[in-house]
Amino acid sequence: MSKSFEFDLINKENDARAGEFNTPHGKIFTPTFAPVGTQATVKTLTPAQLESTGANLILANTYHLYLRPGAELISEMGGLHEFMQWKKPILTDSGGFQVFSLSEMRKIDQDGVTFRSHIDGSKHRFTPEKAIQIQENLGANIIMAFDECSSPYDESYSKQAMERTHQWAVRCQNAQVRDDQALFGIVQGGVFPELRKKSAEFISSLDFPGNAIGGLSVGETKKEMYQIIDVVNHILPEDKPRYLMGVGTPEDLIYGVQRGIDIFDCVLATRLARHSAALTNIGRMNLMNSKYSRDSEPIEQGCSCYTCQTFSRAYIRHLIMAKETLSGTLISIHNIHMLQSLMEHIRNSILENRFEKFAKAYLENYEYKPGITADKILS
Amino acid sequence: MSKSFEFDLINKENDARAGEFNTPHGKIFTPTFAPVGTQATVKTLTPAQLESTGANLILANTYHLYLRPGAELISEMGGLHEFMQWKKPILTDSGGFQVFSLSEMRKIDQDGVTFRSHIDGSKHRFTPEKAIQIQENLGANIIMAFDECSSPYDESYSKQAMERTHQWAVRCQNAQVRDDQALFGIVQGGVFPELRKKSAEFISSLDFPGNAIGGLSVGETKKEMYQIIDVVNHILPEDKPRYLMGVGTPEDLIYGVQRGIDIFDCVLATRLARHSAALTNIGRMNLMNSKYSRDSEPIEQGCSCYTCQTFSRAYIRHLIMAKETLSGTLISIHNIHMLQSLMEHIRNSILENRFEKFAKAYLENYEYKPGITADKILS
Repeated sequence: MSKSFEFDLINKENDARAGEFNTPHGKIFTPTFAPVGTQATVKTLTPAQLESTGANLILANTYHLYLRPGAELISEMGGLHEFMQWKKPILTDSGGFQVFSLSEMRKIDQDGVTFRSHIDGSKHRFTPEKAIQIQENLGANIIMAFDECSSPYDESYSKQAMERTHQWAVRCQNAQVRDDQALFGIVQGGVFPELRKKSAEFISSLDFPGNAIGGLSVGETKKEMYQIIDVVNHILPEDKPRYLMGVGTPEDLIYGVQRGIDIFDCVLATRLARHSAALTNIGRMNLMNSKYSRDSEPIEQGCSCYTCQTFSRAYIRHLIMAKETLSGTLISIHNIHMLQSLMEHIRNSILENRFEKFAKAYLENYEYKPGITADKILS
Repeated sequence: MSKSFEFDLINKENDARAGEFNTPHGKIFTPTFAPVGTQATVKTLTPAQLESTGANLILANTYHLYLRPGAELISEMGGLHEFMQWKKPILTDSGGFQVFSLSEMRKIDQDGVTFRSHIDGSKHRFTPEKAIQIQENLGANIIMAFDECSSPYDESYSKQAMERTHQWAVRCQNAQVRDDQALFGIVQGGVFPELRKKSAEFISSLDFPGNAIGGLSVGETKKEMYQIIDVVNHILPEDKPRYLMGVGTPEDLIYGVQRGIDIFDCVLATRLARHSAALTNIGRMNLMNSKYSRDSEPIEQGCSCYTCQTFSRAYIRHLIMAKETLSGTLISIHNIHMLQSLMEHIRNSILENRFEKFAKAYLENYEYKPGITADKILS
């Protein structure tokens, strides 16, 4: 069972919340965005570079690390923090989502899932108990209950997966041995408000130190996603952090916070970076575009990240055209910094009761409009 | 014509020299090793990471930058230093070596070389005048005369290429317009001592502010290479820096310095890094080896680089196995730092008249012998 992990709600503005979640590796200031370090590395970045973006909480993937290099090896090496040299909070997912999306030949039963590795085809089995054991070996600060993510529009499968997720949530609680990790429950139920309501009520009843909304951003419309968040968050307890899994565009961060989300994670910032796209406060930029070939401006005017303080768009475009992986590093630094900086502005605006005003102004400008710079919007 | 670029010889021990070469971007403390940033980036490293290795002079490739993004573009962006944000000295090669090794369908005549780009097959022509013009646009501190590198064992071709290199050297001197770049001449002549002697005499007579030995490390034996360096360096002027092009294994740095070389460059350190191999003061390590999977030691004990101060061999091996490019970044940092640190030890030992002793001890230990640590050797 988890020790009590204190979550202090510092201020609320309508449903938006600013808080602090205490972990043995320091406070998580919410709302927060967690970059994804799937294989115990946020791709192309050193921990020092990652820290320079303002990142605090990061996520690592249980499925990947279980397969390679193995959770026991990481435990022997002193746990994830020591292994990857990230001294701030870490969250691991349960492996559930990857087992359903990445592995081959999976067979689900009430007890767990048997699957084949996407790396070498070897056969493995995850159960709720196994998912907890692996996550205890990895040693993150926040660990997740083992869940089943359904096809969002299949009602009968969504109901079945939700019920299994509930049974597994109880088994995860019972399986937990370490008391220094916060185990979060996960709400499922596809795009169906009644299922989501039922799931939120059941998961809330288990009194996890935090709760997550799973199974979103997997094909449903934005409208459906926001509706589900509304339904769920009005049921999940106020005094526990709420984590929206796998969501992290700038606009979704705003809309999520508006609906009472505290924690987000997403591969978008780093994946876009490796595909030449920068996130800015006014929209996305494709830095491969030839119009940047002689552009001496930074990616985003007014941005204080290492990349924008140092390099021109022209140089980054050159790196992209020359297939130099440094372009992915430089854009990743910018993209993560951009989201961290946005979250900081969001948090400050909540603390000062001007979040709604900030959100409205931000979203009006959010779209590519040359000439509008970040410092104008964020001031 | 070059302004006088002062080269101060601080101390000599037998043929080994410690000096300072003054450039508008600061002093180059010789002997020195220049990491290679072919496409205006030392692969996978930011300038900040590169600087942390102790790197000072770096090399960029004229052939690559001429083709992409173009020398005029780099000139418009303020020159190479500004473009890639490397504030210390930069050297560009003449493009000659790459035209002969990388391009397609090259045709050489007395006036120059016509070739097709290895990128898109487009047709281009380099002449000595063009090579200087491109390098003036790039704006490095040290630029190189346009030369022809022969097959080392073909005597009649080596003679022909050498003679053309001599004619081109004169034309390069005449073509130079900027007076803030040091133009170095290049000695050619394959593995043939008589040709090398002739070439060294001719190139010396042109009174370049620095001289290079080209066409080595291209297939000849080590014995032949060292013999040629001996022949050439006893002719090249004492009061000008001597640059051995494309050579940079730890043992060759020692043997080169012993024979009076001041400047080295080589892609080895970074290329090995991207192929999982670390340079250490006792030999090479293949970090993919499974014996490192649970090894909590740094790559090299006693090493002060960011990588060794932060990460275990086990973590770096994991990154390699998981195909994370961060492994290339981390090993590159170590490998370059290792060579920089070796050069610093070499330089200090020359300044203190104990280079021969240092070299002997170093080479005796240079080979993989577990249990011998860098701090033991370098103290």
